[in-house]
Amino acid sequence: MLRAGPKRGSQQHGNRIVADSFVEERLLKKVPRWRNYLEAKFGFRNHWYPVKFSREIAEGEVITAKIMGEEILLKRIDGKVFAIRDRCIHRGVKLSEKVECYTRGTITCWYHGFTYKWDSGKLCDIIASPNTPIIGKKALKSYPVEEAKGLVFVFVGDPDYEPHPLSRDVPPTFLDDDMVAHGASYMVKSNWRLGCENGIDDLHIYLHRQSPLVPNTQRSLPLGHTDRPDDFYELFEASDGPKGIAPRKFKDAKPMAYEGRVEGKVVVTGTKMHTTPEEAAKKRTTGHYVCLPGVLRVDNFPFTGLFQFEWYVPVSDDTHLYIITIAKRCATEEERAEHEHEFLHRWKPVSLEGFNNEDVFAREALQPFYNHDDNWLEETLVREDNGIIQWRELCHRHSSGVQKPSDVL
Amino acid sequence: MLRAGPKRGSQQHGNRIVADSFVEERLLKKVPRWRNYLEAKFGFRNHWYPVKFSREIAEGEVITAKIMGEEILLKRIDGKVFAIRDRCIHRGVKLSEKVECYTRGTITCWYHGFTYKWDSGKLCDIIASPNTPIIGKKALKSYPVEEAKGLVFVFVGDPDYEPHPLSRDVPPTFLDDDMVAHGASYMVKSNWRLGCENGIDDLHIYLHRQSPLVPNTQRSLPLGHTDRPDDFYELFEASDGPKGIAPRKFKDAKPMAYEGRVEGKVVVTGTKMHTTPEEAAKKRTTGHYVCLPGVLRVDNFPFTGLFQFEWYVPVSDDTHLYIITIAKRCATEEERAEHEHEFLHRWKPVSLEGFNNEDVFAREALQPFYNHDDNWLEETLVREDNGIIQWRELCHRHSSGVQKPSDVL
Amino acid sequence: MLRAGPKRGSQQHGNRIVADSFVEERLLKKVPRWRNYLEAKFGFRNHWYPVKFSREIAEGEVITAKIMGEEILLKRIDGKVFAIRDRCIHRGVKLSEKVECYTRGTITCWYHGFTYKWDSGKLCDIIASPNTPIIGKKALKSYPVEEAKGLVFVFVGDPDYEPHPLSRDVPPTFLDDDMVAHGASYMVKSNWRLGCENGIDDLHIYLHRQSPLVPNTQRSLPLGHTDRPDDFYELFEASDGPKGIAPRKFKDAKPMAYEGRVEGKVVVTGTKMHTTPEEAAKKRTTGHYVCLPGVLRVDNFPFTGLFQFEWYVPVSDDTHLYIITIAKRCATEEERAEHEHEFLHRWKPVSLEGFNNEDVFAREALQPFYNHDDNWLEETLVREDNGIIQWRELCHRHSSGVQKPSDVL
Repeated sequence: MLRAGPKRGSQQHGNRIVADSFVEERLLKKVPRWRNYLEAKFGFRNHWYPVKFSREIAEGEVITAKIMGEEILLKRIDGKVFAIRDRCIHRGVKLSEKVECYTRGTITCWYHGFTYKWDSGKLCDIIASPNTPIIGKKALKSYPVEEAKGLVFVFVGDPDYEPHPLSRDVPPTFLDDDMVAHGASYMVKSNWRLGCENGIDDLHIYLHRQSPLVPNTQRSLPLGHTDRPDDFYELFEASDGPKGIAPRKFKDAKPMAYEGRVEGKVVVTGTKMHTTPEEAAKKRTTGHYVCLPGVLRVDNFPFTGLFQFEWYVPVSDDTHLYIITIAKRCATEEERAEHEHEFLHRWKPVSLEGFNNEDVFAREALQPFYNHDDNWLEETLVREDNGIIQWRELCHRHSSGVQKPSDVL
Repeated sequence: MLRAGPKRGSQQHGNRIVADSFVEERLLKKVPRWRNYLEAKFGFRNHWYPVKFSREIAEGEVITAKIMGEEILLKRIDGKVFAIRDRCIHRGVKLSEKVECYTRGTITCWYHGFTYKWDSGKLCDIIASPNTPIIGKKALKSYPVEEAKGLVFVFVGDPDYEPHPLSRDVPPTFLDDDMVAHGASYMVKSNWRLGCENGIDDLHIYLHRQSPLVPNTQRSLPLGHTDRPDDFYELFEASDGPKGIAPRKFKDAKPMAYEGRVEGKVVVTGTKMHTTPEEAAKKRTTGHYVCLPGVLRVDNFPFTGLFQFEWYVPVSDDTHLYIITIAKRCATEEERAEHEHEFLHRWKPVSLEGFNNEDVFAREALQPFYNHDDNWLEETLVREDNGIIQWRELCHRHSSGVQKPSDVL
Repeated sequence: MLRAGPKRGSQQHGNRIVADSFVEERLLKKVPRWRNYLEAKFGFRNHWYPVKFSREIAEGEVITAKIMGEEILLKRIDGKVFAIRDRCIHRGVKLSEKVECYTRGTITCWYHGFTYKWDSGKLCDIIASPNTPIIGKKALKSYPVEEAKGLVFVFVGDPDYEPHPLSRDVPPTFLDDDMVAHGASYMVKSNWRLGCENGIDDLHIYLHRQSPLVPNTQRSLPLGHTDRPDDFYELFEASDGPKGIAPRKFKDAKPMAYEGRVEGKVVVTGTKMHTTPEEAAKKRTTGHYVCLPGVLRVDNFPFTGLFQFEWYVPVSDDTHLYIITIAKRCATEEERAEHEHEFLHRWKPVSLEGFNNEDVFAREALQPFYNHDDNWLEETLVREDNGIIQWRELCHRHSSGVQKPSDVL
């Protein structure tokens, strides 16, 4: 190497001048309690993110993904998945432009033959310049990978950050032995935070009142909430667990609104399929839990006994990968088979592509407004939105690093 | 509402840093006599602008428009048109993504059921959160609306600015009782100021010399002008009337050029259908008048006895809505019917879509140059262009506010 | 002219604020030895650039081109080609929107009839305003033009810079009397510097190992180089000649690598068709030479006895015109005819559109990385890349001016 790249103080995106952050200091300083969240336009670093389903990476295949603005390459070798950055250290071209794997454990750049090891990113050979001193000394960025419940998780972190256990980045119960998850993923044209906030937004159920899921499941769906107590949410901030937030308990009496009024007149009604609290427990979703780096668990949804786990994985500043799984505790092979069948033939069409498509619509409708960073300070939140504010503040407090221009360019 | 949005000092457009103004101070200070005009890239605030023809808004229909970068919604209720901003105050989504009007006088946001009154913008209900204290206290921006001569005018103004009468924003005679106007509108990919300046540019008639309108009307059309006196224009700046500029009178002798020469040789000729000044009065357009916020009247055009009124309504920084009307004084129903027939079957195809299409071509050809704010200081105007400079200075003096990033984002 | 345009201190590109330079000072100051090169995103001024082949400009035809961001017009009059800027001085529209040439030696703007002389750019008439004082005093920018070897060269320079001879801007031998060149041009979506650097990059031959040219010519093609001496390159910096760089001599023994190894195992082999140094001279390309403003000569390529001359002409910051010629010394008409036939039927398909297409692929793959100016400081060059660094430094030392925003806007 002829010259060490100096550390960058500010960044230029093409002709465009950008600062150290994707978001201006002028705005950040206005929200001291959720500053890191406002800044995390490209997501939080030092976390595990799912990027693919396990079934999407066959043995020996090289596939591409993009996460938090970083382009990566994945390959499964002897069953284990490895991930490296899709950018040759030499002159920055993508290895994926023309994949060359001469040995099982390496990948070679099509341009000058820079060859890297999949397991470490280490530069082990340069075909066009075999005696160059940098061989063995330089490396491509490599990403820790874990697979769980049919998902491939990648740890996007700083070089000096030792990855924490995956269990700290998923909602409780997801990794339980008997939990079986099936799912699908969708590319959504909105910032990842809008995915999160829509997911935990209790009032947005109004949007779903005509969803095909409602008649399919014959369960209750209110239009909204009223007079919620200030201490409605519980925060989870133990140092060794996920950092999350959840309603203390779901109440089903007064706070639920099943009748929508305009100027005193009932103009729209929700679906109420229960009369007693006992019935309600079977006919209602019973809770949700969201944690860093942007994962939601919904209990008894889309049906009694199921758990929906969903991720809003930052792809860029205006796109996230929406990964939805429907999980169920299964004790036997027969139960597993039945759950898979139900997922494919009932929940995928009716819930993921019925109910959740309505959420995708909403998030993409939020994007033009929130795409202007200024507008994060122009919204008019209501009392029932305080879960969103508590979520932003929790993210701020537990931020382990915000993705910056220098991580992406 | 959990938090009051602080007043914005400067704006960010996506990732892009923008200042308080759409145009840099560095440039503005170079043109002290027309600084406000250079700054008014998105138009002047506190004016009446036509946004639709009356016939385009049927009773009960909700339609969208965009003006000066603001997206608005229009609805006709019991004959009267109302206009509100197409952006829910809650989380900024467009109401028009999915229109829900449960009562005749309200519109409800599809996302959380925020419901607004069409006549005031006031938030009257929130379906998903019926007891929230902000109900009745907050409002969506609403715009005063007036209809005249088949056009729907919207007043885009500051909250504390009491709308002045429409008569101050249209050329004299337009609102006269016997004046009957018919027209059409076209979206043009150029800044609105280029529409204005092309409209009042006396030299641009060279462009029209082969227009289909010329043989159709058998009227005179010179190629340009020579030796025009310095006091050619009269300014109209009375406090209670429109602010405008017009030639003192149309002279038809020496200042008109009907022969075009290159290196002394006649290479192109205009169309001269008259020999005496008396004939000229019948064969020639006899004047034009332009006023704020960008409206032109042309007398005896496209034919003797007709008036062309046209608006260049700012839609964004690079697009304007070109509204053209052909007006005529009509005393009887029969005259009105004949004028409408003539408009549809003669003037719309031959003049609006013949002659004026050439103007659209020219304005769109100007856009790449003037799109760079610097280039407003790089043009090379000639003596006969002094009307353009006087127009810019008049706009500067009578500016009632320039549309800013904070009005648009 | 009503007002003199003030000299611009900084530039605005649409809404975007740009500085005096297309590249930030913050970055430029980090590379003091090749600062001018890093800054020359739009190319170097005061040089001769080919923009068309002579055969592309027929007598009397007006054609457009874009070079270093400047839009120009070319016309051949009585055999001689003239070039002027394609932007009327009056209001900045392109003359090419509607070409009007009333006399052989002039062009008239379609908008107001501003008429310019092709040979000087001088404003000689204004049809719509024939008596205006600026006639004869103002001029459109005109560009010196020379034709040589079937190419039309345009000098893009400062007003006060007297064009130097074309021979200072082409590699030696190109202008020799017996040299006959044929070629073609291709628009490439990469910065011009990436064209240059790929051209002189000795290691990139790895990319070409499966090129159709190799079996077609039965010549040797190594995979790369090893253990190259530090003084491998010779610099040409005489004041009256082209400023260039070339390998001292091509060695064919140890420094060439014909076997590509990964982890000790041979995984790919080059093509070696010779066994002795004498044979090598016939079977190998024997050298290359690159000079300002971005021209390469390759000797004995694509075949013994041929010279490839190629240009990377800046069109904009992300596009260059790749002009390739295959030249041969021809003593007789018969040799000339045979060379033309060979070019069209062998070298154009197999070399230009076979071999060189692989280079186009590489340059376009480099663009996303180098498009971020910061990344010019993030590459990891190897010892064998020192020719690239020497080239950058030579360009820096002999820069006669960098194209700036004020030259382009």
